[in-house]
Amino acid sequence: MRAVVAYAPHDLRLEERPEEVEPDEGQVLVRIAAGGICGSDLHYYHNGGFGTVRLKEPMILGHEASAVVAAVGKGVEGLATGDLVAINPSMPCGQCEECQRGLRNHCNDMVFRGSAMRFPHAQGLFRETMIVRSDLLHPVGRGVAAGLAALAEPFAVCLHAVKQAGSVLGKTVLVFGCGPIGCLTIAAARLAGARRVIACDVVEAPLATGERLGADEVVLNDPEAGGLSPYKAGRGRIDVAFDCSGHPAAVASAIDCLRPRGILVAVGLSGSMPFPLPFVVTKELTVVGSFRFDTEFAEAVDLIGSGRIDLSPLISHTYSVDRVIEAFDLAGDRSQSMKVQIDFR
Amino acid sequence: MRAVVAYAPHDLRLEERPEEVEPDEGQVLVRIAAGGICGSDLHYYHNGGFGTVRLKEPMILGHEASAVVAAVGKGVEGLATGDLVAINPSMPCGQCEECQRGLRNHCNDMVFRGSAMRFPHAQGLFRETMIVRSDLLHPVGRGVAAGLAALAEPFAVCLHAVKQAGSVLGKTVLVFGCGPIGCLTIAAARLAGARRVIACDVVEAPLATGERLGADEVVLNDPEAGGLSPYKAGRGRIDVAFDCSGHPAAVASAIDCLRPRGILVAVGLSGSMPFPLPFVVTKELTVVGSFRFDTEFAEAVDLIGSGRIDLSPLISHTYSVDRVIEAFDLAGDRSQSMKVQIDFR
Amino acid sequence: MRAVVAYAPHDLRLEERPEEVEPDEGQVLVRIAAGGICGSDLHYYHNGGFGTVRLKEPMILGHEASAVVAAVGKGVEGLATGDLVAINPSMPCGQCEECQRGLRNHCNDMVFRGSAMRFPHAQGLFRETMIVRSDLLHPVGRGVAAGLAALAEPFAVCLHAVKQAGSVLGKTVLVFGCGPIGCLTIAAARLAGARRVIACDVVEAPLATGERLGADEVVLNDPEAGGLSPYKAGRGRIDVAFDCSGHPAAVASAIDCLRPRGILVAVGLSGSMPFPLPFVVTKELTVVGSFRFDTEFAEAVDLIGSGRIDLSPLISHTYSVDRVIEAFDLAGDRSQSMKVQIDFR
Amino acid sequence: MRAVVAYAPHDLRLEERPEEVEPDEGQVLVRIAAGGICGSDLHYYHNGGFGTVRLKEPMILGHEASAVVAAVGKGVEGLATGDLVAINPSMPCGQCEECQRGLRNHCNDMVFRGSAMRFPHAQGLFRETMIVRSDLLHPVGRGVAAGLAALAEPFAVCLHAVKQAGSVLGKTVLVFGCGPIGCLTIAAARLAGARRVIACDVVEAPLATGERLGADEVVLNDPEAGGLSPYKAGRGRIDVAFDCSGHPAAVASAIDCLRPRGILVAVGLSGSMPFPLPFVVTKELTVVGSFRFDTEFAEAVDLIGSGRIDLSPLISHTYSVDRVIEAFDLAGDRSQSMKVQIDFR
Repeated sequence: MRAVVAYAPHDLRLEERPEEVEPDEGQVLVRIAAGGICGSDLHYYHNGGFGTVRLKEPMILGHEASAVVAAVGKGVEGLATGDLVAINPSMPCGQCEECQRGLRNHCNDMVFRGSAMRFPHAQGLFRETMIVRSDLLHPVGRGVAAGLAALAEPFAVCLHAVKQAGSVLGKTVLVFGCGPIGCLTIAAARLAGARRVIACDVVEAPLATGERLGADEVVLNDPEAGGLSPYKAGRGRIDVAFDCSGHPAAVASAIDCLRPRGILVAVGLSGSMPFPLPFVVTKELTVVGSFRFDTEFAEAVDLIGSGRIDLSPLISHTYSVDRVIEAFDLAGDRSQSMKVQIDFR
Repeated sequence: MRAVVAYAPHDLRLEERPEEVEPDEGQVLVRIAAGGICGSDLHYYHNGGFGTVRLKEPMILGHEASAVVAAVGKGVEGLATGDLVAINPSMPCGQCEECQRGLRNHCNDMVFRGSAMRFPHAQGLFRETMIVRSDLLHPVGRGVAAGLAALAEPFAVCLHAVKQAGSVLGKTVLVFGCGPIGCLTIAAARLAGARRVIACDVVEAPLATGERLGADEVVLNDPEAGGLSPYKAGRGRIDVAFDCSGHPAAVASAIDCLRPRGILVAVGLSGSMPFPLPFVVTKELTVVGSFRFDTEFAEAVDLIGSGRIDLSPLISHTYSVDRVIEAFDLAGDRSQSMKVQIDFR
Repeated sequence: MRAVVAYAPHDLRLEERPEEVEPDEGQVLVRIAAGGICGSDLHYYHNGGFGTVRLKEPMILGHEASAVVAAVGKGVEGLATGDLVAINPSMPCGQCEECQRGLRNHCNDMVFRGSAMRFPHAQGLFRETMIVRSDLLHPVGRGVAAGLAALAEPFAVCLHAVKQAGSVLGKTVLVFGCGPIGCLTIAAARLAGARRVIACDVVEAPLATGERLGADEVVLNDPEAGGLSPYKAGRGRIDVAFDCSGHPAAVASAIDCLRPRGILVAVGLSGSMPFPLPFVVTKELTVVGSFRFDTEFAEAVDLIGSGRIDLSPLISHTYSVDRVIEAFDLAGDRSQSMKVQIDFR
Repeated sequence: MRAVVAYAPHDLRLEERPEEVEPDEGQVLVRIAAGGICGSDLHYYHNGGFGTVRLKEPMILGHEASAVVAAVGKGVEGLATGDLVAINPSMPCGQCEECQRGLRNHCNDMVFRGSAMRFPHAQGLFRETMIVRSDLLHPVGRGVAAGLAALAEPFAVCLHAVKQAGSVLGKTVLVFGCGPIGCLTIAAARLAGARRVIACDVVEAPLATGERLGADEVVLNDPEAGGLSPYKAGRGRIDVAFDCSGHPAAVASAIDCLRPRGILVAVGLSGSMPFPLPFVVTKELTVVGSFRFDTEFAEAVDLIGSGRIDLSPLISHTYSVDRVIEAFDLAGDRSQSMKVQIDFR
């Protein structure tokens, strides 16, 4: 079995690993179908980690994947050989204080596949086969493409982000940042009944994908261009903004555009930043973070699987696992690619 | 100008009325295009009113209508001759305690067209021409059918009902009653991102319309048939239920199907009823009413006008105003009709 | 060791039981100090149970108790011999679907002491000594009376009920029913910053206790007397009502008194009842249940222990355990008693 | 009649003004009793304004005042000569978009007494007599000190701030900044049933007042001292924090101390600041602003008037109007004074 293993910055290897073949009770052997490259995978590839999270041993990357059931252990119900499944990479402990409060996405002892946050690292999903606890496998409907099924994880992140805003039904929504998370947030906000979704980015290329995923209007966020001016009129005209960029300028624009009592959901992560807190006070804005997901994984699988939502415009490239390095290099270039996936079959 | 005037139970007349032709400043002369017959219109027709609301003088019926702009008064912006508009029948005073709390749908001095709640009655929209305050006219996009535009009012009611549930994104929703309000609630819940919408009625015919408007599953609510049994399993599997029937049996079923902390939005109106309050306590359910609409009228117009939602399956029949009595007779027969509209052109 | 054991209706025995004396790791041996008689204890005493919950074997009653630490097992921190503690009778499993959603009070596998809901029954707290898991023992501050500490459980129920209303700060609150739960709800609503608390009962005697626990006004709910008329004026003047009576007439009065968008928290349990659902619709009221408690137990202990709240007016009688039958008989007479406690020392 | 008029930085004059003596219909002539000096009064005194708000003409200062009714115009009910009243300085228009949404504190055409935000400026309350619309006068209970009644306005600000946090019942609350607004927020949080209130300031003197107004613990926020360390343990132990300081270091500490899903209410105003947004994301914190008040003014009057809350520890000094300059000089010195009031009688 081959796996995609990060050793150090720019030392990514497709290497042979021993294959587990016998699922125990409650377990399932799967063959990975499609795997999507995410921003954190790129951080491991380029920088060996981010912030205080650092590679301390070789780690199989990947936490966005679909797979086909190859063998089913004793006591597993509802899964059969040949089924396409999405794999939930999130394994909260269920016991800690946060889990017991119902905040499983804040688990104090979280195991999240393909993450170096713990040591030993939680090995990821970019490999040809693996054995998984059956409750982490969510069957996807018939005839769904493996690539779409592999979008369940990032889409779950965005469904969770939209829920952090409360109901957006009938509201005017502004999304900053049209990378994969921004685009899926556009799709999720539209799915949730926003009256109008405006998408905004500092570069031109991704805006087209934002539009294909449901933006009613796209705006190049160039201060000179003034595309957001109508939304900054008066004390602001936007009900709900999502920052999926992590850029201070986007956050500042969002706060300008929000009307009194508007909501900013912060999704993007970067460092500490200058922040116009006085307008949060005088407009009584709400700024709320969104982090990971919980029940949204199952919801994402259902919504994708039933065809309620078509996320295919997000997938810009699919590479065979043999060309995985090429795939990683392309995924890092925003002007060329959106979501790059790896085909493991 | 002809108008549809209710005099007494079963005394509905299409009669000539003097025509107003000169809009004052801020006013607009419109020619009514399509008008939808609602349950309260039928109550005036059949019973001369409902509860304590009674016809005390002849009243033009109708509060669901679209129209075409015929002449525009001084100072009116954004409206031109020939524009198709939806007419908001709701005119809260803006001054009373409830309006000042932001609860305009609870206005203590509400004027609502086609309603006998006040005296003199607020004359309705079922007439060939009328003069209207311009802020009550909402332009609908190009190429939208007049009949669809006339659905803005009942759809606003249902958008408001769905908002009363908070966010339904990713939730499992059950709607009781597949009359026009039930069907539009199905459409609104689906628009708002419900993971799955189940529709339920005691008769077969309307379920098909429920399905066409977005129900993933329809259930004949026959206690013998047990169609809801899977949703009553354990302590209930439904996140949010809407009662659009007003029937005690539906309310009781809803409470059986809701899981702990589930929400029942009560939309349908009938009398006092036996109610299983103990399960509200032990499952900590929330039962919340929904009444009329406010900003949802403009939202409904946008969503219909932009094609975000197609409500055409709801309109079962359209009659020329010459055959208005026939239209009213048919509208009262649930086995034959869904939404019956009158064409005034 | 003696225990208060219910065998059948009106067959309550104070009997000798073997004493456990050696706490295991993580356990604590306590001597019960005070125990409060609750409505469900009375149901077992008078009727052998309630609804489908029936005594199927002898059961030690009691779920409201304080105790003194007698011996501490290995690994127990923060507890020492002689400490006064309140005992949390609620032991959710932590594993089931509801627990994992953070709804531990809805645990599908709840063990609640002194309850016949499971079989074998969960034996209760009315005994001289017992061994308890240390995390269920909450130390109470120095100098607090054992009787007050034993009120932590019912007060937790009422803190939870008040939380179900959201914030009541600055609001006008109406409480129906001035039994122990009603009176503690009055205290909790006042603690939570209600602007004004009105208490209501159909009998005179308990109103005085309601007043001593914080009601600004007490009203005898006699329809003839019209004491609630000012609160029914217009469409109602009350922001938040609590029904702690379970009586249909109280629920109906509450709905009359609530202003548009008001909230009724249903705490009291009785059967199905006639219910004015149409006013829930037209006033867009929220009716929400409240059931048991979770983190509120620890909060109740802190608030009682720190002297932030004085609940002593609630305790009308304290009997030595030798006179336990007498205590039960008195506790059933609302005209004579409020909270009756048993002294086990 | 004498009035306290700001002409320019450090040019504050006690000067004679013509007296209005005849209240029209719906109006009341009052003699000001006590007036409290607020931070914005100090800004006009020291700097001639703040931000873009600048004195452009002489302005009578003051927006915190109580008064005694001297004469009542026609049609005024519920007020009689001799009554002590608190004067609401906030006069939203009731007509604009924000007022009609129920957000009267965000009125687009607000008239707020003693503020130079509009031109001509809205003249303030620091004068011996004035004529006021009767609905702005709130009678205070018998025997209440005029100084306490004059605290209704700042206390309304703090009640509003606490409401922005939702319910704080049973929660652990941390307040940064122990100036008058911080101290009244402590009082309001405690009134609202917080389990524990911790107060924090960078200087020692005001902490004692914080304690007298209800803080269970006071912490000198000296990074060396580490007084907040226990609250920063793990991912933070605080449920709700209030920033009443406007200092970046306080905001950063608040975010460190908040547990996952905690709430920070931003009350204090200063400039843009460095802000640890990544922790808002990863802990899914909510940061929400609080600005002015609405219905809380009436609530504050009731709570002060009924003796539910004793705010007297806040008033550090009371000066006769003859010594008003001295009063302003003292009010600017945090080490010497807390709330300084002027006695106009």
